Amino acid sequence: MATAVSPLAPKSVPAMPVIPGVKLATAAAGIKYRDRTDVLLAVLDPGTVAAGVFTKSKCPSAPVEWCRDKLKGAKPRALVVNSGNANAFTGKNGRAACKFTAEIAARAVGCKPKDVFLASTGVIGEPLNAKVFDGVMEGLVASARPDFWPEAAKAIMTTDTFPKVATARAKLGEATVTINGFAKGAGMIAPDMATMLSYVFTDAPISQRALQALLSEGVEDTFNAVTIDGDTSTSDTLMAFATGAAKDLGAPSITKANDPRLKPFRSAFNAVLADLAEQVARDGEGARKLVEISVEGAKSKASARRIAMSIANSPLVKTAIAGEDANWGRVVMAVGKAGEPADRDRLSIWFNGIRVAHKGARDPGYDEAMVSKAMKNDTIALKVALGLGKGKDRVLTCDLTKEYVAINGDYRS
Amino acid sequence: MATAVSPLAPKSVPAMPVIPGVKLATAAAGIKYRDRTDVLLAVLDPGTVAAGVFTKSKCPSAPVEWCRDKLKGAKPRALVVNSGNANAFTGKNGRAACKFTAEIAARAVGCKPKDVFLASTGVIGEPLNAKVFDGVMEGLVASARPDFWPEAAKAIMTTDTFPKVATARAKLGEATVTINGFAKGAGMIAPDMATMLSYVFTDAPISQRALQALLSEGVEDTFNAVTIDGDTSTSDTLMAFATGAAKDLGAPSITKANDPRLKPFRSAFNAVLADLAEQVARDGEGARKLVEISVEGAKSKASARRIAMSIANSPLVKTAIAGEDANWGRVVMAVGKAGEPADRDRLSIWFNGIRVAHKGARDPGYDEAMVSKAMKNDTIALKVALGLGKGKDRVLTCDLTKEYVAINGDYRS
Repeated sequence: MATAVSPLAPKSVPAMPVIPGVKLATAAAGIKYRDRTDVLLAVLDPGTVAAGVFTKSKCPSAPVEWCRDKLKGAKPRALVVNSGNANAFTGKNGRAACKFTAEIAARAVGCKPKDVFLASTGVIGEPLNAKVFDGVMEGLVASARPDFWPEAAKAIMTTDTFPKVATARAKLGEATVTINGFAKGAGMIAPDMATMLSYVFTDAPISQRALQALLSEGVEDTFNAVTIDGDTSTSDTLMAFATGAAKDLGAPSITKANDPRLKPFRSAFNAVLADLAEQVARDGEGARKLVEISVEGAKSKASARRIAMSIANSPLVKTAIAGEDANWGRVVMAVGKAGEPADRDRLSIWFNGIRVAHKGARDPGYDEAMVSKAMKNDTIALKVALGLGKGKDRVLTCDLTKEYVAINGDYRS
Repeated sequence: MATAVSPLAPKSVPAMPVIPGVKLATAAAGIKYRDRTDVLLAVLDPGTVAAGVFTKSKCPSAPVEWCRDKLKGAKPRALVVNSGNANAFTGKNGRAACKFTAEIAARAVGCKPKDVFLASTGVIGEPLNAKVFDGVMEGLVASARPDFWPEAAKAIMTTDTFPKVATARAKLGEATVTINGFAKGAGMIAPDMATMLSYVFTDAPISQRALQALLSEGVEDTFNAVTIDGDTSTSDTLMAFATGAAKDLGAPSITKANDPRLKPFRSAFNAVLADLAEQVARDGEGARKLVEISVEGAKSKASARRIAMSIANSPLVKTAIAGEDANWGRVVMAVGKAGEPADRDRLSIWFNGIRVAHKGARDPGYDEAMVSKAMKNDTIALKVALGLGKGKDRVLTCDLTKEYVAINGDYRS
């Protein structure tokens, strides 16, 4: 397993402010890893509301089913996330493990089991021994504190090489509200829903319905526009919790997502999602280059998205970028296989601003030395112009390296 | 670039008989490679008919467009295939190169340019200098001979590590007819059309229409059921040529694909396609294991195919197999992301005959040592039973190794 931090990790980590109404704690329950934390507990004040989007997999993990089932009408008081075991494809044992974990968390926090949200990430297909949580839950509740954000992000890591946190502030009425988030990613990341696990918290007083609308809308161009390997996890979960504590600061209560007062908050909220999603791409398993794929001139935004994803998921494009080769021929291949309207003779392709192909052939001004130099950057902007319409979109991915194969060739053992 | 022969190469190569009406020649035109042949000419007797299936890419290569355009009403007399350059995404130059190549071949063979079929394989996006064919064409025609099959297969290789040939015989009426084929594959192989390049020849007297029907039907469970990396080439071409020479042996002329006399021929023809398709999978770039994925109990054959392809194209499943890890959790993931009907709690999974998962959980009799031993085989049979219906299907793929990344990270340079 890779241990060195990704060279694409953000150079600086933001100071994470407190979110009134949220306390965090972590523990080492010994699920799989040694000498590291592997359980996160978030304790939420009464009055908190929750929104969520989950994997579209037809074989979701037990905690995903638990959360989906409990989301409507929930009065969330706790979130328990473990790493090391995904509790997926674990049959009755998996459902029992969810129930047991929720029960002990509810007892420790003082709420009902149905008000506890759960997630598990790690190996799939292995039974999760939820008993281990029993030994740490009381201690977690006792030690929960409002300033434990980086530690929370660390406890849920699997093959991630750095913890992913993001924060933003926005005006809501006359008050300033805060949004904090963390995520874990690494592999088995494809859109078709969120990333593996990501949690966003705010003190904004916002209704469950409005928060769900914001989240469902915000995910589209952030987490759903990131792909590492085209593989969709059984456990993908993105949840948002709003404690409402900013009411005390004078923030107005918002009940509808289209409330005009929500505008700055929406921007800040989406910025946190986009920041976390980009960090997931920056920490793709074995990634050495962050790749932004922009498609313009498509028939529609949806068509541009499908073409961008076809490029982003092409092993041949990804290995070429790993080899610092501006192999636009493979980009054409990926455009062609997307099945979307495309006309070879109108196609232009740029790598980091240098046009390498124009109107169906190599650019007349193509300069191999200049292009080779540009490909050495650790971020690659790959732009494709189709020349057909006004549809455009953008997705993030990373290169496909030997390290990806190494990480995934012996992850379980 | 990998040079060692794939460990999955067939242990023996069949002796290739003559097909009356077909002569072959190869030459080294120096398109890209040094010290090897890179052009193949097949000369076909008058009376030959041709059938073809081509890439579904929206950005096909110039030779694919040429062949599609000429197929109807063609009286094929020659086939020219080069390796080293795919003549794809080469604009007007590409079309001109096709026209020029067909013209010089027609002059040398003594036919019309429209009766010449073409294909190119290799780097895409680089202009093909067709002038180089001018120097070798007369010599190719002069040296063409009926027994040059392995050499023909060799001349069209790119990153292939071994030439791929197959042969079969069948009764047609009282006569015995012969079917020979060769193929090249390696990477950028996904169904949605044939493999990269494959040619099948027979002396059976069969009409163009019947041959096309046979080919379109035969491709479905052979070349279209193979995937190396999910990437669809701009150049995929599978063509069949029937010289009709077996009329002299007393074979009846067949005009309809549903003629009952065609039954043994159809089996033999499909066996040649299946043999070549399997060899393509055995020579997937960097492949160390041949993987057969069978799905049964699906709602339909089409649903089983989509699930099998989702598994076959999953980088996480493929890297796990490379690591000799029977990671059925990732198989569940790939079933789940296919978007087809699936019920986790009815799912069973086998690796090389050992059931590792049953009804939504690890098999009660799971024996790690036994499974680990089975994963060391160089062929892996991965079976998934969905327990929903009677639909079943099977596809072939290979594992995803560091060598794949190495080959494709510096293929162009």
